[in-house]
Amino acid sequence: MRPEHSGRIAAFGIDLGGTKIAGGLVNEHGTILASASLPTPARSGAAAVLDAVAAVVNQLREAAHDFRITGLGIGAAGVVDPRSARVLSATDTISAWAGTDLAAELGARTGCAIRAINDVHAHGLGEAWQGAAAGKNQVLLLAVGTGVGGSFLLNGVPQTGAHHIAGHMGHFASPLATSLPCSCGRTGHLEAIAAGPAIHRHYLALGGDSAVSDTRALTARAYDGEELAIQALELGGRAAGIAAGSLANILDPDVIVLSGGMAGAGELWWDALRAGYEAEAIDPLQALELIPAALGNNAAIIGAAGLFLAPGNQERIGS
Amino acid sequence: MRPEHSGRIAAFGIDLGGTKIAGGLVNEHGTILASASLPTPARSGAAAVLDAVAAVVNQLREAAHDFRITGLGIGAAGVVDPRSARVLSATDTISAWAGTDLAAELGARTGCAIRAINDVHAHGLGEAWQGAAAGKNQVLLLAVGTGVGGSFLLNGVPQTGAHHIAGHMGHFASPLATSLPCSCGRTGHLEAIAAGPAIHRHYLALGGDSAVSDTRALTARAYDGEELAIQALELGGRAAGIAAGSLANILDPDVIVLSGGMAGAGELWWDALRAGYEAEAIDPLQALELIPAALGNNAAIIGAAGLFLAPGNQERIGS
Repeated sequence: MRPEHSGRIAAFGIDLGGTKIAGGLVNEHGTILASASLPTPARSGAAAVLDAVAAVVNQLREAAHDFRITGLGIGAAGVVDPRSARVLSATDTISAWAGTDLAAELGARTGCAIRAINDVHAHGLGEAWQGAAAGKNQVLLLAVGTGVGGSFLLNGVPQTGAHHIAGHMGHFASPLATSLPCSCGRTGHLEAIAAGPAIHRHYLALGGDSAVSDTRALTARAYDGEELAIQALELGGRAAGIAAGSLANILDPDVIVLSGGMAGAGELWWDALRAGYEAEAIDPLQALELIPAALGNNAAIIGAAGLFLAPGNQERIGS
Repeated sequence: MRPEHSGRIAAFGIDLGGTKIAGGLVNEHGTILASASLPTPARSGAAAVLDAVAAVVNQLREAAHDFRITGLGIGAAGVVDPRSARVLSATDTISAWAGTDLAAELGARTGCAIRAINDVHAHGLGEAWQGAAAGKNQVLLLAVGTGVGGSFLLNGVPQTGAHHIAGHMGHFASPLATSLPCSCGRTGHLEAIAAGPAIHRHYLALGGDSAVSDTRALTARAYDGEELAIQALELGGRAAGIAAGSLANILDPDVIVLSGGMAGAGELWWDALRAGYEAEAIDPLQALELIPAALGNNAAIIGAAGLFLAPGNQERIGS
């Protein structure tokens, strides 16, 4: 007969994106003890996606036997109400995703208590709990990749706002983006100049080489010394830095964590980011740390599990 | 022999500005029961200012006899640590104000328990507790007057940030302020185009009539139909609206309250504000209410007393 679990606690954490469902068994110290993943059947509708999440959880169960599992946390695309774990609205990245009741659907499929939050907030929670900002009370995460988003955390708790749509840091007027079209249908937003694809578009608009097919190739050209590639990369970094400075003046965090693909674009981007920040932040905030995220792709898995394990979250989510 | 007080509670609230010290006796419902004020002896140093605050409190004591006074709250200029009631830093509006220990100095002078917060946050607390945003959980106050500032309140508590300098909403990159000098020594900030004096400067830069000596006169000219006055007033309103839209996308409040002199500049300013907001806010936030402050000059007095009386504040400040 199998012995009872040891009394140690853990939770399942799921990072549910448009292409991949990545899961982990996470202990109370935020360590991933086991991992599993499956492709997201994004075109097959919500039920298929939920089944795939349950399949990932099943792959993690063997490793979970020695633990008391406190729940299954999910960082999911879309606007998610963390109190009800319901998807309030979403783009069509996953078919028919809006309206999905994650608590009921995944509770029925897995037998676990369910909590959920938007994936960028899960990412922020991971970094604030166990990553680059561990131990800090007021954390601003700015994620600059395919899109631009963010999360502001107070005492370890992501602030999702009155309608759970806070954190749209990409949809923030940028003086460097005037009249550029944004993914939200408006113009002049940060995302329209600072996101990876925006940097690539800007490079082509400057007359860049059409053989440079994406931002990664552009970044390589920049480090080879190609002037237009440097210009586009630096302008994106500077725009993100100006936004970071404005956000610091408004929110006054302990630290700003930069994540997403552009945060991995090296010193050309980081130097431009810091220059933009310094041009913007008021004197007492000039010394604020801007640091790279530390958990990489594991941040959202750890953060999702943190909905059950990280200080402050259990109490808050239930309220 | 004087009877004991009735058991009803109240607090003193002080709005301490560069020109005037305004005080009130405020009951638990946020009603000002008695008022007093004195000019601020701003050039005479901190001790003289503190003596004047104590004198205002003394004028309120007669009305306070029937109440149990829970404390003296102060909304003060400068960067104020609400946990220690110490002025961390300040401009020279009041001589030698930085470093003043309000808890010790005013405690000794009045015998009251002392709490303090920056005056804009006191203003926000007043509006969120008893004013335009009463009953709302997540409130953004944007004050557009001689300067531009603000306060974001969660569950009735002003969020002052990691170093108690949050709320510098005026020092926020504005696409309409590019290269304009700001009071903080930088360029391109919202305050440089949206504050009252900035609107007046912009009017003069456009070639406006030099006989128009201030923003009030400019506003009157705008309502008389003068084109340059309308342009300057609308540009300031639009810049404030763009900032409000960006802030909504980031913070997702229940409501945005506009206060300060410009919020009294009528429909030309408000229409431009709303147009700027609508150009900026993402779809689910288009319907968010932007409303004028309701308490006028009493907001900071009521908010300062609210440090002792308003839900959530007593617990928070002590932590």
